[in-house]
Amino acid sequence: MALELRSLLQPTGELELSLVEVPTPEPTADEVIVRMEAAPINPSDLGLLLAAADLSTLKAAGTAAQPVVTATVPERVLAGMKARHGESMAVGNEGAGVVVEAGASPAAQALLGKTVSMIGGAMYTQMRCIRADQCMPLPAGTTAAEGASWFVNPMTALSMVETMRREGHKALVHTAAASNLGQMLNKICLKDGIDLVNIVRKPEQAALLKSLGAKYVVDSSTPTFVEDLTAALATTGATLAFDAIGGGKLAGQILSAMEVAINRTAKEYSRYGSAVHKQVYLYGSLDRSNTEIVRNIGMAWGVGGWLLFPFLQKIGAADVQRLKDRVASELKTTFASHYTREVSLAEALTLDAITVYGKAATGEKFLINPSK
Amino acid sequence: MALELRSLLQPTGELELSLVEVPTPEPTADEVIVRMEAAPINPSDLGLLLAAADLSTLKAAGTAAQPVVTATVPERVLAGMKARHGESMAVGNEGAGVVVEAGASPAAQALLGKTVSMIGGAMYTQMRCIRADQCMPLPAGTTAAEGASWFVNPMTALSMVETMRREGHKALVHTAAASNLGQMLNKICLKDGIDLVNIVRKPEQAALLKSLGAKYVVDSSTPTFVEDLTAALATTGATLAFDAIGGGKLAGQILSAMEVAINRTAKEYSRYGSAVHKQVYLYGSLDRSNTEIVRNIGMAWGVGGWLLFPFLQKIGAADVQRLKDRVASELKTTFASHYTREVSLAEALTLDAITVYGKAATGEKFLINPSK
Repeated sequence: MALELRSLLQPTGELELSLVEVPTPEPTADEVIVRMEAAPINPSDLGLLLAAADLSTLKAAGTAAQPVVTATVPERVLAGMKARHGESMAVGNEGAGVVVEAGASPAAQALLGKTVSMIGGAMYTQMRCIRADQCMPLPAGTTAAEGASWFVNPMTALSMVETMRREGHKALVHTAAASNLGQMLNKICLKDGIDLVNIVRKPEQAALLKSLGAKYVVDSSTPTFVEDLTAALATTGATLAFDAIGGGKLAGQILSAMEVAINRTAKEYSRYGSAVHKQVYLYGSLDRSNTEIVRNIGMAWGVGGWLLFPFLQKIGAADVQRLKDRVASELKTTFASHYTREVSLAEALTLDAITVYGKAATGEKFLINPSK
Repeated sequence: MALELRSLLQPTGELELSLVEVPTPEPTADEVIVRMEAAPINPSDLGLLLAAADLSTLKAAGTAAQPVVTATVPERVLAGMKARHGESMAVGNEGAGVVVEAGASPAAQALLGKTVSMIGGAMYTQMRCIRADQCMPLPAGTTAAEGASWFVNPMTALSMVETMRREGHKALVHTAAASNLGQMLNKICLKDGIDLVNIVRKPEQAALLKSLGAKYVVDSSTPTFVEDLTAALATTGATLAFDAIGGGKLAGQILSAMEVAINRTAKEYSRYGSAVHKQVYLYGSLDRSNTEIVRNIGMAWGVGGWLLFPFLQKIGAADVQRLKDRVASELKTTFASHYTREVSLAEALTLDAITVYGKAATGEKFLINPSK
């Protein structure tokens, strides 16, 4: 038996987070059992884990070893989650650990004793049964903690650059740019010679990115934000943005500043605005309020959702492998993740912890160690 | 000398509409002179003509034969029109008339005396000098008034269907659906067996479309709008909308209703919402306020501007010719336009007239007859 973190949303709107005991299965020939040692809490895990619950309603119950936490999910989002009502959901997109049991196949046997990283859900567990071909053995000298975040953030950052190239843009804009992901993107762009306009929300985040060599950093909390952003867009020619905020006015402000930047060099009046396509992809929802697009952006623009997995599916296996290979070769440099706290499964369900990681605040990053 | 309608926006924000006398040029070998008899005032002409001026500030001056009208353009849109400040702009996307003079080339000579329709701007004029290959001779028995609107609305409606096919959708949504364009789209879809969900804003518009055979009509002024829309989307499977309104909550409501309609048949919970791509193209700006997108639509969605000319450029000459041929063969049926008023150039600049066509209200459609 092993402990596994579960998220259960009742049709009444009550969310229950708990640790349940699950039997460890016998692996089939092609499977292995991984003793989990590290799994990050990424912003992309929070939707499934917390179901957009109101964190001010959090209540603790159960024991220290097997805590139970409840919270209320607001009416307005509850209906949209109908398909998960009453289902006990396992959580955790990615993680790493040691293969402690293996099926009879040579591929599975070859992994025995190895430290591997994985993507595929249900990683907040002590023992993960998984197909051998879904495991990536970590290079010698790499710990589970170092390899646990090898997929979501690195592949997302690389895919942003890949999207830029495929859609014919020459520079990028990124919001919430001081995040783990943002720091990776900054490193990639510096290395590859791509101009990146980093948008942050606090002076200390701007300072952090500048200390990491970022050339273009604009702070949305300053009175000169729009002006600074427009200047950076005019210099870099960036016409593609990836926005983690999602709600509010920021996406529209970016499009609007792009249009002004493009028109600074316009030779003649076009009643429809510039003919240059401007695109903002919303890949996160740090702000869940409505996205507001102001209408002074001409007609050549788009806003849309962007998700890693559909993108990878679209580009195909060969290109995905190329991106994966790059991550593997730069795991301790470009793609190094930094954690502010390492917690056990039980510690991840304290009100204290949930209140901090539930905010998805830049600079706070939790790593769950289920073996702790 | 001939009269030509001009729109002049000063850097101060004063807009001046007037008729100026321009000399009629000698046509070069490849050009003809067309005596203009008909040019519609389309919603797509209003941006250039009125520059988003505040119509409550309209003032009349000049004479009845050569009126001058002024109005004030709000500060917030003025900066975005910098490129036209101080430039006297000719107006009118399309029109038709009789070729009264022709250059020496055989192509130009062949048009002499013919009634032709044209696209290319500056059509609110008495004498239009234009390249012969930009003229489409109207079929015998077709008047200038019947052929004047052959391009913008018909080609836009056909291009919406073309976009639907190219982007892999199987049915369409259209807003402001009782417009001239909307009625054409309804006829095309009925003829081609495509399901079209028509969104209107008034009961009488719903009745009109139903009398024209429309199967799916929903009225946004009724309390059951969202419910009715969702039901129509579930039945038709429409995942692409063309929206003429642009601002406000409608585009977001459509996406949201599409997501609910798709999830009605969903088999299992996806934390990212449905994987089916939902798209709304904003091709007009009847509402110039911010576009608000509510965030319960999953991640597979897009909103963007859509313009006829870039679309035609993208699909290429052969496909454009195919669409043009269809318009020519159905000019008096599918693509017939209806006008509520025919006015002279001077009458088009009365406060009375501007106040009516400036609203771009469904059911009101002006035709300018510069020979009147």
